[in-house]
Amino acid sequence: MQSVLELHTYLTDELKQVDSTLKASLETPVPIIKTLGHHILNAGGKRLRPLLTLACAKIFTPTPPIEAIYLASAVELIHTATLIHDDVLDESELRRGVKTANNLWGNACSVLVGDFLFARSFELMVKCNDFNILTKLSKTSGLICQGEVKQLTLLHNTETSTADYFDVIKLKTASLFKTACFAGAKIAGATTEEAEILGSFGDNLGISFQIIDDILDYSQTADTMGKKPGDDYLEGKMSLPVIELFKVRPDLQPIFLDENKQNFETIKQAMLSHDIFNLCYQQAQTFTMKATQNLEHLPANDIKNNFNNVAREVLDRAA
Amino acid sequence: MQSVLELHTYLTDELKQVDSTLKASLETPVPIIKTLGHHILNAGGKRLRPLLTLACAKIFTPTPPIEAIYLASAVELIHTATLIHDDVLDESELRRGVKTANNLWGNACSVLVGDFLFARSFELMVKCNDFNILTKLSKTSGLICQGEVKQLTLLHNTETSTADYFDVIKLKTASLFKTACFAGAKIAGATTEEAEILGSFGDNLGISFQIIDDILDYSQTADTMGKKPGDDYLEGKMSLPVIELFKVRPDLQPIFLDENKQNFETIKQAMLSHDIFNLCYQQAQTFTMKATQNLEHLPANDIKNNFNNVAREVLDRAA
Repeated sequence: MQSVLELHTYLTDELKQVDSTLKASLETPVPIIKTLGHHILNAGGKRLRPLLTLACAKIFTPTPPIEAIYLASAVELIHTATLIHDDVLDESELRRGVKTANNLWGNACSVLVGDFLFARSFELMVKCNDFNILTKLSKTSGLICQGEVKQLTLLHNTETSTADYFDVIKLKTASLFKTACFAGAKIAGATTEEAEILGSFGDNLGISFQIIDDILDYSQTADTMGKKPGDDYLEGKMSLPVIELFKVRPDLQPIFLDENKQNFETIKQAMLSHDIFNLCYQQAQTFTMKATQNLEHLPANDIKNNFNNVAREVLDRAA
Repeated sequence: MQSVLELHTYLTDELKQVDSTLKASLETPVPIIKTLGHHILNAGGKRLRPLLTLACAKIFTPTPPIEAIYLASAVELIHTATLIHDDVLDESELRRGVKTANNLWGNACSVLVGDFLFARSFELMVKCNDFNILTKLSKTSGLICQGEVKQLTLLHNTETSTADYFDVIKLKTASLFKTACFAGAKIAGATTEEAEILGSFGDNLGISFQIIDDILDYSQTADTMGKKPGDDYLEGKMSLPVIELFKVRPDLQPIFLDENKQNFETIKQAMLSHDIFNLCYQQAQTFTMKATQNLEHLPANDIKNNFNNVAREVLDRAA
């Protein structure tokens, strides 16, 4: 994603500070926390969420305060903690082409280090000294969990509606994108209205991002993904592509649910025949459009242009 | 524990408010979170930690502010989240005589609901509007995790020293007792010095409490415990009784480590022959003494007398 790379370049100094803050967050007298933490924090994530926080801050001040660095780091720690716990729940073996923490160090250690990263994210938030932001960020962790639990209770439930799906992804994915943007803007002096506009941008971007992720889990090959495609299929996750497929091919539900889990290719081919990827893509597109419309309410600046490109490139991943 | 019951009576109104706050914390549109949360919050816990917070507040004001209720509830949520995750890690089937959440709803749901309770505890802390307390409480969660991870890395490690053991229990248990007391006092208007005296009291009480718990895991029967005795043995936990036993009977290490796990009675009988429970009890006693010495620095009042009794009764559980 070219425009995310541009953000990386534009925010090199701030990102370095985020990396130092993350590294410092792993400092503990218990060596394995550091080892496992480094493993996951350096496993090739794009740092998309902290980039959004920093970029939103930079819209309102050329030199974001140290609190913006803390918040960007806190956002990345929440995201990372969620990933570690996700991998435990999903029994994943690979993420971003690298062995998962649970695969290398076992579930028990992964659960606890995830908890530790959550705890450290709160320590960082507290240092930002702003109750408005603190309230939003502390709520966000709860929202993510609610989304994850709802997703879990809907596994293998072929009655899952599109509305259920959107509930899940708004909670588990978009809520953190939203707060990442809001917090960055607010700490840098944005008015509440401006911060909320950027929050809505993050919200819509996050929804679009997750829909595309869910398409890719069926449409891509292992080489381009860095994790096994079909993970969602294996887990029985009710993502948008299957929900849309069952609207036209309810007869495939028993094949999807079959416990031997040998039907990935059958499901994928049916999705291709019925143009399901395109149908989902169009839904992602509407959220990208909403995201760019949110930005229209802000005065012209370089980051706004970049954000428009980021929103488009999120779609391009599955184009 | 008579004096804990007295605290319950003395703090009836405040505890009711804590219970309402905990109930409200479980309000979410995702029903299973509420079900699982209620199950664990109503599973017969003594509410010892929130009682300490409320009692410490009551030393400094006859009517603790609503923030004291929030803090007491946050402390109980942190404790509960830790218990849920512990039961997942230990694969426990019973806690306080009741089936564990992981046993009833599976590990995935338990991990996520634990995360949710952590998140809600932070939301409550933030509402207390005091950065000093917020900083201490947010650090405490990280300390608990560090203790849990250290304990995990020491499983089956018969080289574990007494110092390692005390590191673990100070982090995983005493740190929350300490902060529970500090926060209650501070929010009710105590000076930092007074709050720290009560923090030290909590710290010493917590250490004593954990040593006694670890004795009981070998000395008690299932009927009186509400969980299976010998859990620590089955997990290979390096608790004080085994560390002390190996000092006099290093020959029992292979028997302790034997993977068939049929040697609980042999280990227990060896502990009885070598008076190990008494030896550990004496160590708990020194921390109870420290706890009562901490209280000497405070002016006379009813709660101080009660706390002295609580400290003694913590010991009585294993007398």
